[in-house]
Parts: sequence; structure tokens; C-alpha cells
Amino acid sequence: MDKLTVDLLKAVSEYVDGGYTGAFNIRENGGCAGRQSTDNILIEGKKDGSGLDIYIKAGTKGEKVFIPACVTRGNVSDLVYNDFHVGAEADVTIIAGCGVHTDDEGEAAHNGIHRFYLEKGAHVLYEEKHLGTGEGSGQKKIDPVTHVELAEDAVLEMNTIQLGGVDHSTRTTGGSLADRAKLLIHESIMTDGDEYAMTDFDVDMNGEDCAVDLISRSVAKGNSYQEYHSRIKGNNRCSGHSECDAILVGKGRVNAAPELYAGHLDASLIHEAAIGKVAGEQILKLRTLGLTEEEAEKKIIEGFLKG
Amino acid sequence: MDKLTVDLLKAVSEYVDGGYTGAFNIRENGGCAGRQSTDNILIEGKKDGSGLDIYIKAGTKGEKVFIPACVTRGNVSDLVYNDFHVGAEADVTIIAGCGVHTDDEGEAAHNGIHRFYLEKGAHVLYEEKHLGTGEGSGQKKIDPVTHVELAEDAVLEMNTIQLGGVDHSTRTTGGSLADRAKLLIHESIMTDGDEYAMTDFDVDMNGEDCAVDLISRSVAKGNSYQEYHSRIKGNNRCSGHSECDAILVGKGRVNAAPELYAGHLDASLIHEAAIGKVAGEQILKLRTLGLTEEEAEKKIIEGFLKG
Repeated sequence: MDKLTVDLLKAVSEYVDGGYTGAFNIRENGGCAGRQSTDNILIEGKKDGSGLDIYIKAGTKGEKVFIPACVTRGNVSDLVYNDFHVGAEADVTIIAGCGVHTDDEGEAAHNGIHRFYLEKGAHVLYEEKHLGTGEGSGQKKIDPVTHVELAEDAVLEMNTIQLGGVDHSTRTTGGSLADRAKLLIHESIMTDGDEYAMTDFDVDMNGEDCAVDLISRSVAKGNSYQEYHSRIKGNNRCSGHSECDAILVGKGRVNAAPELYAGHLDASLIHEAAIGKVAGEQILKLRTLGLTEEEAEKKIIEGFLKG
Repeated sequence: MDKLTVDLLKAVSEYVDGGYTGAFNIRENGGCAGRQSTDNILIEGKKDGSGLDIYIKAGTKGEKVFIPACVTRGNVSDLVYNDFHVGAEADVTIIAGCGVHTDDEGEAAHNGIHRFYLEKGAHVLYEEKHLGTGEGSGQKKIDPVTHVELAEDAVLEMNTIQLGGVDHSTRTTGGSLADRAKLLIHESIMTDGDEYAMTDFDVDMNGEDCAVDLISRSVAKGNSYQEYHSRIKGNNRCSGHSECDAILVGKGRVNAAPELYAGHLDASLIHEAAIGKVAGEQILKLRTLGLTEEEAEKKIIEGFLKG
């Protein structure tokens, strides 16, 4: 593999020089740069070459699956369909980082279409980091599309982070929940320069006592612009919570448009949003501890994105 | 005036048998059923007959203007344009109730297009009650459109209440604020049966240190459906707050879609929304004080709509 790919893999996934421990598939500029299945986790190329089917056996516990994707040069527009079939009562971690790099004028783009089918009682922790690097003038784009189908008692936790350097990103996430299923999403998006990032959630809470908790944290620096849109639909006895908070720095701008639909008497839905700059008193407090203004702001923003 | 008109005027405005104290214009089935100006407040019909111009002299204090409108039968679709020109430093109350009644199969509809031009430092308290009555199968519709232009330091407080019985309502409110202007809106909307109510706010905070506070309370009973959409745009150093809370009863449904746009580093925007049914413990508490379940729910809903 390209040295650039290795650097990106280290930044966006848990890649170490010995490789990964567990099942993995490394996607590099639209091709396969390495693949490994385990006894419980089978990774197979789709017959039409459009992507992967990942089969996780029922009851598999504590294993990790790595499916990172990197684009390391311009004039690559990678599109991949990955389907995750997670058996009943499995409890696994899926790590799906994505790095795009260009040193030239060509566009470097990755579009990952991920579908998650969680069977009864399955639990998945999904970690995704996105990063753009390189000094080329070509646009770096990452436009993930995620669809989730959660069966009874299934739990999907998604932690997604856009570390920076991605010029253009539209993140579309949708799906539906059966009885007692839970979807817990925490996203952190950092934009700077002229970057644009858009998030669009659309979740159907169809099952009795299912729940969605959606936390979105954004920092818009430079001249960047972020849009947030969510639709949480309560079609049964269920609970939904969404929270989108944003910090503005410089000429950053944010539009937050969350939507709640209650179509059932026992749907209980809550939303909170706050947009503003870093509070002056927070900076002052850290400056009395010896930090410069820049260090204080950096620390506050780091804490905010994790929180 | 028709007895029905008198009953509606009493329900939606401060009408007493002696009439109104202050400037007024009573609109009945698209015509004028009475008009009075005062030394400080001039009410004039527009030359093209499309509505009224209301001129409030600069510095006018403590006066009231009544501009109620009633439709008392089917097959009336009333459309009126009323423009309020409020002079600098004036401080007045405008009462603009609307009642629609039909005992037949014809539609009874009122569309009031109101434009408010508040000059520097003017303060207006605007009170609006909407009510539908009558046993006819004809639709009762009230679709108000409000546009506000607030000059420096102007304050507009709008309290709008939909008491019930209105089959269809779309409420559109938009406008812009100059330096230090404030727009404070409190709306309460009650729907039942197959009623539909939609609220759409779109406000530009253009002035330095201007502010918007938007509180929407809805109760959706029966098989009714309510939609709420707001866009609060912070284009300068400003603060915006919106809150939309809804209570579901029976098969009532609600969709809440507030939007915040921060286009300036010093725009500070907050939104909260909650949708759910009346909490069981609240009902229990009131029942221990001797109320029946129905009485307890009624009391909680009344308090919620006022709050």
C-alpha cells in the first residue's frame, strides 16, 4: 500500500504497522488493498463488484470489523455499497474510517453507501472518522449514505467524526426501528475555510418502546457553512431526543433544522438546539489557568465536540 | 349587526353591548359594520376597497384599536389587507379577533393580510383570538398572513390564540428587525376533530442587538393535525429563542420543524421543542385534590396554553 494510505488509515481507524486485529477490508482508490475474514465474520465481495457483504454470525461477541476506505489522489470518485448483516445477539464493533487526499487539481471523492441489518438483540458500535488531507486544489469530498434496519431489541451506536479538511460532505442517514430497538448517534463535525457539510437524518420509530437519541455537535470556522436537518418520526409508543449544538468561529455559518413528528399519543419527543460563539467567560476562566486565548478556544472546542 | 356577529365579537375581542372604547373598524361578511377614528388614530378605507390603512400618530400612548372581522354564514370568502402605520414612540394595543360561523354547507373563510410598520421606539401589543362556531358542514377557515417591519428600538408583542372550531388554518408570519428591535410572539393553538392548523414563521434579525422570542403552544385533540415551521435568521449580533411545545390527546398528531440560521459570529440562537401527552403524575396530583380525570386534563391543558 501507498504510504499516504497508511498515514490516512492510522488517522481514521485503528491501523498500526502490523495491520488490523480482526476481520478487515481495506479499500484504496476504489480497489481492494487487503481483506481478511474470521471464523465469525465473513467479508465477501459482491458478485457485481459494487462493494461488500459483511456477515456477522449470531452470538459473535467482542470482535472488531475494519472497513476503512482511502482515496489518495485526484480524479478518483469512489462509490461503494457495503451491507452489514448482523446476526441475533451479536455484539461487535465496526470501524469505518475514510480518508481523502489530493495533491493535484483533480477531485478526490468517496461515496460509501452502508446498509445495516441488525437482527434481534444485536448490538453494534459503529465508529467512523473522516479526514481530508493534501495541498491540491482538487475538491475533497465524502458523502456517506447510511441506512439502518433494527430488529426487536437491537441497538446501534454510531459515533461519527469529521476531523477536518473535507471540502464537501453530505451525510444522509435513515432507517427504521422495531420494538425496543435503540439508535444512538453522536456526530462531531469540524469545518474550516470554504468547506461545506450537510447532515440529514430521517428515522422512523415504528416499534413499541423503541428510542432514538441523536446528538450533533458542529464547529464552523473560517468561511465554512454547515446545515443540519433531522426528521424523527414517532409512529408508536416511543421516545426520541435530538440535540444539535454548534459553535461559530470567524465567519462560520450554521443552519439547524430539526423536525419532530408525533403520530402516536404515546410518542414522546424532545429537541434542543443552540448556536453561538464560544462564551467569553469560558475563555477568561482558562486564561486565568495560564492558557493563551487561542489555546483556551481550542480546548473548549475539543471538549465541546467530544461532549 | 347580526346577533351572530355580536356573539363572535364578544368571544374574540373586548366587545361589550355599548361597543368599543377607542378607534375601531368592525368587518362583517366582507363589509364594514362600523368604524370610528380618534384624534390620534385614523382608520381609513383603502381607495381600491381592499382593506384599511390605520395611522397611529407618533407619541400616542395607552390607546386601543379594535379591528375584528367576522364571517357569519357559508359561501363567504373574505380577503382583506390591513396596514398599520405606527408612529415613533407610540405605545398602543391592537385587538384583532376573528370569528367564522356557518350553519350551512358553504365555506366560511377569512383571510386577513396584516402589515405592521413600526417606527423608531414604537411599542405595540397585538392581541388576536380566532374562533369557529356553527353546526354547518361547511369548512371554517382562517388563514392570517402577517408581515412586520420593526424600526430601531421598536417592540411588537403578538399574542395569538386559536380557541377552537376552526377547520383549517394556515398562519404565516414574517418580517425583519432593525437595531435593538424586539419581536415577542406567544401563540396558543387548540385543534380537535379533523381540524388542521399550520404555523409558519420566517423572521430576519438584521439589526444589531435585535431579538426574537417565539413561544408556540399547541394542543392537538381528536383526529386533528398541527404543523409548526419556523425560520429564525440571525444576520447580525442578535439573540433568538424559539420554543414549541405540544400536547397530544386522542389521535391528535403534531409535526414541529423549527429552523435556526446563524449567519453572524455574534448571533446567539436557541430552540427547544417537546411533544407528548399529559403526564400521568400531573393528572394524579390534581385527582388527589378532588378533580375527575377529565377536569384534571382540562386544567392542565388550560395552564399549558397560557404558560
